[in-house]
Amino acid sequence: MPHPVPASSSTPLSPTERSTPRREKERAQTDRRALYDVLDASLVCHLAVVVDGVPLALPTVFGVDLAGPDPGGTIYLHGSVASRSLLQAPDQEVSVTMTVLDGIVLARSGFMHSMNYRSAVVVGRPRVVGEERERSHALDVLVDHVTPGRSAALRRPTRKELAATTVLALPLEEASVKRRTGDPQDEDFDVEAGGVWAGVVPLRIRAADPVTSADVVDLPVPEHVLRRAAELA
Amino acid sequence: MPHPVPASSSTPLSPTERSTPRREKERAQTDRRALYDVLDASLVCHLAVVVDGVPLALPTVFGVDLAGPDPGGTIYLHGSVASRSLLQAPDQEVSVTMTVLDGIVLARSGFMHSMNYRSAVVVGRPRVVGEERERSHALDVLVDHVTPGRSAALRRPTRKELAATTVLALPLEEASVKRRTGDPQDEDFDVEAGGVWAGVVPLRIRAADPVTSADVVDLPVPEHVLRRAAELA
Repeated sequence: MPHPVPASSSTPLSPTERSTPRREKERAQTDRRALYDVLDASLVCHLAVVVDGVPLALPTVFGVDLAGPDPGGTIYLHGSVASRSLLQAPDQEVSVTMTVLDGIVLARSGFMHSMNYRSAVVVGRPRVVGEERERSHALDVLVDHVTPGRSAALRRPTRKELAATTVLALPLEEASVKRRTGDPQDEDFDVEAGGVWAGVVPLRIRAADPVTSADVVDLPVPEHVLRRAAELA
Repeated sequence: MPHPVPASSSTPLSPTERSTPRREKERAQTDRRALYDVLDASLVCHLAVVVDGVPLALPTVFGVDLAGPDPGGTIYLHGSVASRSLLQAPDQEVSVTMTVLDGIVLARSGFMHSMNYRSAVVVGRPRVVGEERERSHALDVLVDHVTPGRSAALRRPTRKELAATTVLALPLEEASVKRRTGDPQDEDFDVEAGGVWAGVVPLRIRAADPVTSADVVDLPVPEHVLRRAAELA
């Protein structure tokens, strides 16, 4: 499910100093394709937002529209209109983190233990989406991010559902992307000493076969669901 | 790898109003065992911390010591002494979120789409661990959370490594735990209308076979690594 890379993909990431990784620079990615790769591979994100004075990282689904209103693309988030986090988010700068775990890195010392991963942190001030057409579109984008093709199988949202939902848009403008891959990087003296195994346990989120709801009568698992389960199998 | 539940497991979660979930109460768990279950099932957490004025959710490994200095147990985090997030964390209340994805919930309407998941948010003011014995112990706990039994196979950290590492402790005191399981919950009128498939695509993080580093000479994959890979297989 790779996103088409838009014309604006040449926009550099990390346009500001604060989102430029200062440490572990070798893990920093500056290509916009690396950002889209992390977005594609993530099923959920963590919205970091200060709620009643405390920063919280709240897991939530998201959608990406690279042809959206913002030049580098738009991330959509949604939730209940009663959600404290979504109510307080538009009054502040927030961030959204996507993290994909690729492996456990087992080194010869505790210090060099690590994870193989890909992560993206997008920073910005979210916009509350008010216009009905964009709201409805954003909800389709959210559903289709998790299961591409799903929204076309569904009825349109009701007025009541739309009224109960807050939709936020965050521009894909300021982002930092990191990645660690490969073997552990051990100290030479640990390698020379020998005696301790080192390596990687690869990890991946994987799907099992779709389970049909008990109240479904006489319907096969649709093609878009089978495809998604196969991609994640 | 279930944690033994300590005597203090009867301490209620969410002792304060702010960490008591107000919405989706049916998803809130109040049992401390539910918290330990989420901690056990999580390989990484997201530390939510305000860095230079912006809340960030930073993926990082963690360790849990239920026999640690805090009554309900202690979460340990670590990182470089140069890390901005760890430098700024002790001057504020922060939170740590663990999220386990259990499935994609495909409902008959976009509105009822969801994820099956387990999540925990632990809130508190982190303590910088200064005492050398606790620091060294915390680093073992961190390594063993990801791969139980690993720390016993490793040399002790050097002074230089310890000096380069910040260790934070967060009490497992104030936490909220949520869980969603089972089929989609559809509107009666959507079920009666028929025609749209509904169900769940189960998800799980899974390990492939361990991959030995290129520079390992004549060592088999150790038992603790095989066991971890098998648990996640």
